[in-house]
Parts: sequence; structure tokens; C-alpha cells
Amino acid sequence: MNRRTAIFLSDRTGITAETLGLSLISQFEGIHFTQVTLPFVDSIEKAYEATNRINQSKSANGVKPIVFATIVNPEIRHILQKCDAYYIDFFDTYLPGLENELQTKSANVMGRSHGVGNTHSYNTRIEAVNFALNYDDGARTSGYDSADVILVGVSRCGKTPTSLYLAMQFGIRAANYPFTDDDLHATTLPKALRPHRTKLFGLTIDPKRLHAIRQGRSPNSNYANLEQCQKEIQAVEDLFHHEKIPFLSSTNLSIEELATKLMVISGLERRLR
Amino acid sequence: MNRRTAIFLSDRTGITAETLGLSLISQFEGIHFTQVTLPFVDSIEKAYEATNRINQSKSANGVKPIVFATIVNPEIRHILQKCDAYYIDFFDTYLPGLENELQTKSANVMGRSHGVGNTHSYNTRIEAVNFALNYDDGARTSGYDSADVILVGVSRCGKTPTSLYLAMQFGIRAANYPFTDDDLHATTLPKALRPHRTKLFGLTIDPKRLHAIRQGRSPNSNYANLEQCQKEIQAVEDLFHHEKIPFLSSTNLSIEELATKLMVISGLERRLR
Repeated sequence: MNRRTAIFLSDRTGITAETLGLSLISQFEGIHFTQVTLPFVDSIEKAYEATNRINQSKSANGVKPIVFATIVNPEIRHILQKCDAYYIDFFDTYLPGLENELQTKSANVMGRSHGVGNTHSYNTRIEAVNFALNYDDGARTSGYDSADVILVGVSRCGKTPTSLYLAMQFGIRAANYPFTDDDLHATTLPKALRPHRTKLFGLTIDPKRLHAIRQGRSPNSNYANLEQCQKEIQAVEDLFHHEKIPFLSSTNLSIEELATKLMVISGLERRLR
Repeated sequence: MNRRTAIFLSDRTGITAETLGLSLISQFEGIHFTQVTLPFVDSIEKAYEATNRINQSKSANGVKPIVFATIVNPEIRHILQKCDAYYIDFFDTYLPGLENELQTKSANVMGRSHGVGNTHSYNTRIEAVNFALNYDDGARTSGYDSADVILVGVSRCGKTPTSLYLAMQFGIRAANYPFTDDDLHATTLPKALRPHRTKLFGLTIDPKRLHAIRQGRSPNSNYANLEQCQKEIQAVEDLFHHEKIPFLSSTNLSIEELATKLMVISGLERRLR
């Protein structure tokens, strides 16, 4: 197999460089990429260190590494650009054209997009994470009035990570409520959920996948039994249809995809940008 | 103030388009951007719908919106590129050069970078999130053997969101342990932590900021009292120095910055890519 090194280079966290670089290299199936992140390259000295590491990769592998860089400071960028690599600098590519279109000079300030930003949005995010934790797994239902959404589904279908992602990424206050066997056999929604039915969003999952996940947690239990999983999923999907609760399956969706699809379907506005 | 609309356009979640666009527009301080995300534009029909929305923005505001697009399918991309906007297409910019450098055609497949990927990395992530939840706030200490890192600090200094971010982003198993008043006045580390001292990582925070956060949670309590906050922070920083525990301050760092700096300082290898 064809091999290359992909280096994500940044003067701050490297998150932007990684996100952009990964989405590009994921388009090249036939190549195995060894991934290296070099974050916080924010001084002349560190720029020379990073250059050495990049050049070593070239000499060790005999082929240029691909560098995905988000370096804002022009002096540091200038040093790094001379390295022996196929070098992509996102700011260099797009800022000149944007400056022209916007008729404004760019600020050349590091760490804008993943920094603290303003205290308000920082607090919104932390509050949303705390909300997700406080109202995880049906532990408490008293705060559903201030929830943006309440995720419902059987145990281990992906409610908790989705709630946390919604909080962290969008500042959305997501509670989650696990349907028990009793809930699934009742003819009405659980009492705690009835006043909030417009906030409900369902998750389902392929029974075989649920079985595998539960086996990992509690091997050979009734809880993990495939037939039990099939029964629960059948019942929960019937309930979603009957109660007209919108729902998604977590079987083939990542947490990001689940969360962003949920935002679109339920028409939620993000509280964070 | 100068105003513009920024539109993040994608055939999948829009996360890459947002990351790219936000890091670019954050460099233009003098302009207020209204942000719109149009995710899951994955059919010809949706491409025309999105084109209409973009063109409406132009006619409503009299100025072209800036579009940051990650559209993989060439047919859909072709339709969208004709919209009345300053149009940046991320794949269009970089894929031809990369194809040439890598001597490989790109796959033109949507949703590569934020999709499910392989089941192994999906499970790694979910397990790490569950670990962070199970070992949050010193609730249990029995699983510290399998922790990658144990965050320590006083109550409300940012341990929980940092642990969750480490789990979600890097698949790192991060426990966290809050130092109580008793812990801070003891001459040795709490018993539960002693066998794991190489895994400890400290968080501190400016006492005034801690005071403000605690006031929000429990107004006018001794817990939120500024003097109490100052005492706790002084004691915890003394302890970090005395026990040689590496630490960071959460005062001026975002969760992303805390987490990525922690990874660098503690030399942790991410379990997820």
C-alpha cells in the first residue's frame, strides 16, 4: 500500500488544521497516511524545530510529507513554508481573496476560532454540558422545562454521547430519558415526558448492534440477549410511530451526523457559534 | 458596522465547512457576520434549493454572501458554484493539487471525515465518554488503573468539560477528582490518588473567575465566597508545585486549548484519529 505522512501544523490547537486535512486525505482511499499533529508552533524557535521534524520525515521516507497548516503569523509562516513538503496553508490560500472581497485587512491574530471567545459563549457551553450531565439517563426530570430537546430511546442506543455532543458543539441543552420495559409496554408516554412531547426526539439502533454493545457491558445477561434487543427496538419504533416522535437510527451515523441531522429535523437553533 | 452573511454549505454535517469558514472570518474583526449553515445538501433538488437561499441573501442584503463549501459530488458542486456569492469550494481548491502530488484520483465520496468510520474507533470514543462519566467528580476511584489521565483541581475549575472533550475528541480515558478542603489541608496526596501520581494533571483558575462561576451555582454561599476561592486556589497551586504535578489554568483557555495543551505536556497519544 502507498504510504504518506500527513502533518497538521498550527500555531494553536491544530484542530482546524486536523479537521481540514483529514477531510482532504479521507478522499484518498488507496493511501495509508501516518498522521502527526504539531500544535502550538507559535515562535520563531518552534518554527525551526517544526521545520526540522518535517524535513526528517522527508529524508526518512524518501517522499514528501503533506503538510496542512494554519499559521497566522506571517514571519512564522514564512519560515515553515520553506520546509521540504507538499505544503498547504489554509490562511495563505484564502485570506488574500477574502481581504479583497471584504475590502478589509485580516487581523493576523492566532487562535481566533478555538480560543475562549467571549465569556458568554463559554458559559453557554459549560451550562449546556452541565445540563446534559444533570439530566442524563432520566436521573432527574424536573428540569425538562428548560431543555431544548429530550432524547428518548432504549438503553445504549447512543443518547448520552449525542446529548453531550449537542452541548459541547452547539450549546444545546439536551436531556435524555431511557425507556424501560415498563415504559415500552404502557399505552401512553411516561408521565414525566407528557408535558414535553414537542421536545422529544427518538433514537433507535439495529438490534444486532445493540446486542453487541450490551454484550460488551453485561455479557450473556437478559439485557444483552438478542431477542430482548429485538423486542425492545420493535416496541420503541412502534411507539415513535404511534406518538409521532421524530427519530433517527444511530446504527450507521457518527455522533456528529446524528447531532447535526437532529438539529435540522427538529429545527433547533444553535446557541453557540 | 460592516455586515456580511457567511454561509457554510455541505453535503454532510457541515462541520468541516464551518471549521474552515469560522477560522477565516474570525480574522476579520471589523465585520459582523451573520452565520447560516446549510448541511446535507446531497441531491440536485437540494442544490437548487440552496442556490435559491444563497441568491435571496444577495438580493436581501445587496451584497454577496461569502459561501464556504465542502461539496464532494461534482454534479451538485457544479450547480452550487453558479450562485450569486463569493464562493470558496474547499475540495475544488485542494483536491486537484493533491491528486497530482499523490498520483491518485480522489474518491469523490461524501461524508468521509465525520462519518462512522470504523466500528473500532466508534467504540473507542463511546467507551472513553462512558469512562469520563463513570469517573467524573471522584465518584468512583476504582478504575484509575485504566485511566489515561486523572484531572485534579478544586470544584468548578473546568475538570468535567475537559475530561469529556478529551474523550470525545481524542478517545482519551480521563477521570477527574475534585480536591476537597480536607484534601487541600492534608500534607500528602489523597490516598486514592497516590498509586497514580504519574497520571495526575492539575487544573487551576483565577480566583475571581471561580468566584463568579460558583456564585452562579450557589449564590452567597461560603463555597462561592471570594476569600474562600482565593484560599483554595492558593492551596491547590502550592500542592501542584509541591507534588510536581503539571498543571494549566483554565482562566484564559478554551476547552479545546486546555485539552490539546494537556496532550502535549503530558505526552499522551490520542486513541482516536
